Order: sequence, then structure tokens, then C-alpha cells
Amino acid sequence: MKQTPQLPKGTRDFYPTDMRVQNHIFSIWRQAALKFGYEEYEGPTFEHLELYTGKSGDEIVAQLYNFTDKGGRALALRPEMTPTLARLVIQRGNELKKPFKWFSIPRLFRYERSQKGRLREFFQLNLDIIGTDSISAEADLLVAIATMLFDFGLNEKDFAIGVSSRRLLAAFLESLEVAEPNSIYPILDKRLKMPAEAFEKELLNAGLSEEKAKTLNAFMSCASIEELKNFDNLSNAIAELEELFELLKAAGVENCVKLDLSVVRGLAYYTGIVFEVFDKAKNMRAIAGGGRYDSLTETLGGQRATGVGFGMGDVVLADLLAEKNLLSQSRSDLQIFIASFNNDMKILFKTATELRKKGISCSHSLNAVKFSKQLELANAANAKCVIFADGKESKNGTWEYKILATGEQGVESLENILRRTKI
Amino acid sequence: MKQTPQLPKGTRDFYPTDMRVQNHIFSIWRQAALKFGYEEYEGPTFEHLELYTGKSGDEIVAQLYNFTDKGGRALALRPEMTPTLARLVIQRGNELKKPFKWFSIPRLFRYERSQKGRLREFFQLNLDIIGTDSISAEADLLVAIATMLFDFGLNEKDFAIGVSSRRLLAAFLESLEVAEPNSIYPILDKRLKMPAEAFEKELLNAGLSEEKAKTLNAFMSCASIEELKNFDNLSNAIAELEELFELLKAAGVENCVKLDLSVVRGLAYYTGIVFEVFDKAKNMRAIAGGGRYDSLTETLGGQRATGVGFGMGDVVLADLLAEKNLLSQSRSDLQIFIASFNNDMKILFKTATELRKKGISCSHSLNAVKFSKQLELANAANAKCVIFADGKESKNGTWEYKILATGEQGVESLENILRRTKI
Repeated sequence: MKQTPQLPKGTRDFYPTDMRVQNHIFSIWRQAALKFGYEEYEGPTFEHLELYTGKSGDEIVAQLYNFTDKGGRALALRPEMTPTLARLVIQRGNELKKPFKWFSIPRLFRYERSQKGRLREFFQLNLDIIGTDSISAEADLLVAIATMLFDFGLNEKDFAIGVSSRRLLAAFLESLEVAEPNSIYPILDKRLKMPAEAFEKELLNAGLSEEKAKTLNAFMSCASIEELKNFDNLSNAIAELEELFELLKAAGVENCVKLDLSVVRGLAYYTGIVFEVFDKAKNMRAIAGGGRYDSLTETLGGQRATGVGFGMGDVVLADLLAEKNLLSQSRSDLQIFIASFNNDMKILFKTATELRKKGISCSHSLNAVKFSKQLELANAANAKCVIFADGKESKNGTWEYKILATGEQGVESLENILRRTKI
Repeated sequence: MKQTPQLPKGTRDFYPTDMRVQNHIFSIWRQAALKFGYEEYEGPTFEHLELYTGKSGDEIVAQLYNFTDKGGRALALRPEMTPTLARLVIQRGNELKKPFKWFSIPRLFRYERSQKGRLREFFQLNLDIIGTDSISAEADLLVAIATMLFDFGLNEKDFAIGVSSRRLLAAFLESLEVAEPNSIYPILDKRLKMPAEAFEKELLNAGLSEEKAKTLNAFMSCASIEELKNFDNLSNAIAELEELFELLKAAGVENCVKLDLSVVRGLAYYTGIVFEVFDKAKNMRAIAGGGRYDSLTETLGGQRATGVGFGMGDVVLADLLAEKNLLSQSRSDLQIFIASFNNDMKILFKTATELRKKGISCSHSLNAVKFSKQLELANAANAKCVIFADGKESKNGTWEYKILATGEQGVESLENILRRTKI
């Protein structure tokens, strides 16, 4: 016998039990996005390679599934959705009435070492607002994140949204008269991953004086907007953060959002507020991350269009939900299994059509098997209820039934059977 | 300015208006599959190349998006779902209780000349039943096809399902004592695309006597099971077809299914009943196609598992639905747009949270703009209704509102506003 081909590394199969969990995640994502007035869009699974190298430079190629097609085109499976979104925005230009709020649930691909919380193929919810400078856009996104995590059953004890500001960091580095702020960001990004002395040493190596390094360390320790006010020259950036937190308070999600200057993210890309969502214990990778990117369409050769958005992957989220016991196995969607004492396939098909015309999901044995075997099949299919068809019952509108979860049986109209089944 | 990257050839962008149409198709597909008790599954977007070459030989590579990943693996974007399904079945072996009914809506990729009805990237509904030899499985699939096409608003005048039988053809060719039946199938497949004389000539070239060629032509012209009975040695295959048509009649879909011996399909693959769905005018490519494949898992190195299934692509289906005016632009899903006379963003955020907690989808301006501009935004967002928030209305539970489609306005409770909006 030949060796059977295996699942490619870093990808997943979704058997029906896995798919039900996955559909639960998609459903909460989609409902939340619609509840906030975001409209769904999609793009192709692969794009021209230059869409990614144009935005992030050639280094990104190492993390891509890129290939040349039979027509000689350099293509790449999409590693993120934002470049596709930028392309869509550029293509339609002024035809699109701005601002607009869009969402998508793309499948994404990254050639990375696969490990806990990180796969080579995954799904990612994206919410973006294009065409407004208003901090209300950031607020709308952050409220949406908190709301959807609540909708999954999580609460403020389970996750925290950390917010920082690119503008704030830039203003502070400017006030410190740092010659090359871009060389400092990577150090700030690692701050929490090293001892305080090591952090200060790296700053000294980067050319900062001992005094400036101490000031910067003190600044980065700020955990509230009040503390930020001890520093000069930050009033614009602070005002923006204050406005943001006031809106979050009005929306009732202030308890899950906090100032967190350790959130730095890819700074070549973001231009304003940046944020990341973590499990409270910070045992996992980020659940979501995003921020304002006001120059992306220009970078790609289009007109300027301001943007702010975030991505939330399915892998870390599912890990957290599983840890909190919020991904309980749902049963299948099958409402009724039709069984027949006399094994008449024609009666089974006829009855199934009758039920489906009423919008009821139903199934039945596809083989003429004995009654006990049909009940086994009903159980295997996870049907909620079995009804017994011998071609007569439907005449007076009642059916003999058995609810599988409780064992309750009787004779009732379909309506009543469905009502009892839902209990 | 740099040239903006373009959409890759043969793929599609789905702006929100396109996505609503696409989601309508997905929704009818999914509801129909669930109504028939099929359970959803998914697999990875790419597989090891050998999964496809193992089934269809190396010729298929010309039509694939295949590539070598950075770890040296030969991979291919999936051109169809059946090989992945076979892999899933082989992997779990006897753990999976058979028979089972599964569906999937994979995104598929074929490197072909893109033209009307055929793209390089498309979606395809797949329904499959694994693990039963019973003709009821074919019946279940055919009833599901007819039902979902009805659910789209099509009727028997719009489409026809043509059914043929690999077994019937084989039995007939055997009774004709044709030496190499496999050389005849490609000729049968082309029969309707050439004049009758040309068809007979090809049969003569393939080594058939003039008499056998005439008999074969007469056989292929049979349009009903009754006519088939004029030929000998076909009783088993005819009995199977008769049983199938009886079940289709019991399910009430007999008017959209007919015997059609011109349906041949890839015969290396199928082993029993085969079928194709066409628009009645036969102006388009096939809407769907499928059949019984009883040796696929064995071909791939696994245990034998009988299967029967079909695929229905989104492209031809959408063309047909558009032609019949059955893809009318649905409005957005946004129920309520919240406007504010005094531009208080905090009240807008607070009100939005209130409404969303009741499960209502709502949005509002993200900038403090004047009232008339807010109404413009409500129209642009295609909201069904605008309510006016000044921070007081919610106290007595009523809101000033305006329904955008009718212009109706008044002051009502949210419940009543939603009720009126749905009219």
C-alpha cells in the first residue's frame, strides 16, 4: 500500500467537531462586527508579491509563502489583510464614501516555525475604519474588541487591552532631544523582557546620556495618564489619550483598557494610537493588535487615506477560550432523525421533504436497516429528536417522537415536538 | 508615484456590495446542507502535491497552482475538495462512524484560462456521503441539489439535472463485446458536440463494426428508462436507476431530474451513478456535477470507503441567478444609525452600547459633524432607521426616529421602532 499523503505542516484539518468550534468563533466575530455597523469584504487568497514587499520591504519575503505561477507572476499567499484593504481603497479612490467601517475574516499564511499559538495557516478577524482622523475611530475599534470578547464569555479578569501612542513616544523622544528615535524603538519594545539595568545599558549604548536613560525609564514606567503629566511637551498626545479614555468610559469598557507604554508594535507601519490585547496572566501571545496607519495607501502608490484597524487571530483566542472552558462541544445542528418501522425508503424521503419544507433539518437512514440500528444512527448523528414515520402519522398532523437527550417520548404535532425538543 | 499592485488575474475582490451577494449564496448553501443533515468540515488551503498526482496522475499538475515551500515541500493550492476529504477519511479510518454526510465550502484554485463561468479562484459547495453503497445516497444528494436551487428562487424551468450511470454504460459496452471500453468513453463524451455521422465515424475508427456503432448510437439516444429496456443485459443497472427515480419521485423532485446518457464525466474517477446540473437553455457551463467514486481512498493508499458526492461552484450559479434576477442587491445589515443634535460623542458611544446590549446593530458618526451631515452618513451606511440621541430620550424609554426607506418619523420605544422598521 502506498503511503497516504499527510496534512501539511502548520495547517489544520477541521473534522465536524472541530468545525463547530470554529464556526462558533466565526459567528461571534461576525455578529459583533455587524452589531457595530462594519460591512464585510474579501479579497483573493494570493496577491502580487510586490504588494507586500512594497509595504514592508524585502525582509518580509522570508516569512511568506511566495511562488511564481505558470504565467511567470510573482505571487504570495496573503500574510495579512491590510495590504489587500489598502489596494481596494486605492482602486476605488473617491468612489468610496469615507469614512467607512469594514470587516473581513481572511485566511492568512505565514512561513514561520509553528508553535503554541502560531500556525502557518490561520484565520484572522480584521476590523478597519478608513477615512477619519478622529480618535472616535480608535474608540469604536477598542469597544468592539471588548464587546466581542465579552460575547465569547470572557470578562475583565480574563483579558486586558493595552493602549499606547506612537505620537506620545515620538513627542517624548523629541523632548529628550534623542538624535535617532528609530534606533530607540526596538529597545523600548524589549524593555519588559530584560532587567532594568540591562535596559538602561542598552540605552547608553544607543548614545543616550545616563540622565536621559533614567528619564526614559521613568517615562516608560508610567501606568496612567496622570503620571504622564509629570513630563513636558506631551500635551497634544495626552489630550488625545484622554479623549480616547473618556469615550471608552462612556461606552462602559474602561475597566478592560489601560495605558501600557510597553506596547510598541511595528513602528514603521503605525502612526498614532497602537494597542494589543493579552490574556490577563500574559501567558500567551497577543490575542489581537492594531493601531492607526495613516500613510499606507501612499506607500503603495495611492492617494492618502487615513486608517485604523486591528487583527484578531483564531489560534490564541481559541486557546484562551478553551482554558476558560468557554469552548464546550456543541451538539450537531440536526433537529430530527426520521425512523421507519417498516424500512420504507420512499416514506422516509417523502417525510424528509415535508419536514424540510417547514425549514426543519432532518436526516434518516440511507439503508433499509432494522429499527434498533436506525436509533443507533440517530444517536451517531447527534439528532435532537427521533420521529417515527410509517406513512400514516402525517395525516392527522401528529407524530410519535422520542427526545434523545431526555428519553421523553409521546405523540404530538411537529410544532409541539420542536418546542419540547428545545427545552 | 509608484504603480499600485493590481488584483491577480482570474481572482476577485469582494467589496461590501459584492460580499452581500456572496454571503447570500453561502447562506442558502449552508442552510440547505444543514437542513439535509450534512455536517460541515474544512481542510487546509494547500496540500502535498502528491495528494493530487496520486489520484489523477501527473497531467493534472498543468492546471495547478503548485510550488515548493521554504522547507522544500512540493505543495499545491487545492483544485478540488474530494482528495482532502479522502485524506480525512483515511486518517481517522474506523473511528468515523459510517455512513456519514459531510459538506464543505472550500475556496479552490485552478490555473486555467479564465473566461465566462470559469475563474482561477472560486468557491465550491461540496456534499458527500461516505460509507454506503445504497442508491439512497445518490437520491439524498440529488434532492439536496434540487432543493437548494429552489431555495435560491429557481424553478424546474430554469435548470435540469441529467443522470447517467457508469455501470449502465459499462454493461452495454460489455454486451456489445467492445474490446477496449476505455477508448470509447471520450467519444461518447463528445457525442452531442458533433454531427451524428461524425460520431459514427469516430466509433468505426475506434474499431467498432458499422452495426455496433448504430446500436451504440441508438442506445445513447435513449431519453427514458423505458427505452433502455429495449437493450439486453442491462437489468441490474436499470433496476438501480429505477430505484433512484422512485426515491426522487417520493421526494417530489422528479420533474427536475432526467436520464441523460450524454453525461459521461471523468470516468477514471467515477464508478456508478454520475450527474450534471445545467441551466435549461444549456447556455452556460455545468452548475454542479458529481457521482459515485468507490475506489478513491484505496487509490490514495487507504482502506476502501465508498463515496458519492458533488461540487457546485459559485461562479456559474451566480451568473444564472443574475440572469434570472434572483441576486437583487440586499441592503446592509445596519439596523439603526444614531444621530445627535448637539454632537456629543460621549452620548453617541453610550447610546450605541445600550442598543448593542439589546443585540441591535448600530453605528454613528465618528466625527462631531452637523446634524444634516449625520443624516447623509446614515444614508451612506444604508441604515434602516435613524434615532436621535441627546442623552435624555432613553430615560422614558422612547426615542425620536426616522425610517429612511419610507420617511416615516415619530417617537416610540425601541421595540416599536424595530417592529416598524421591518415593514
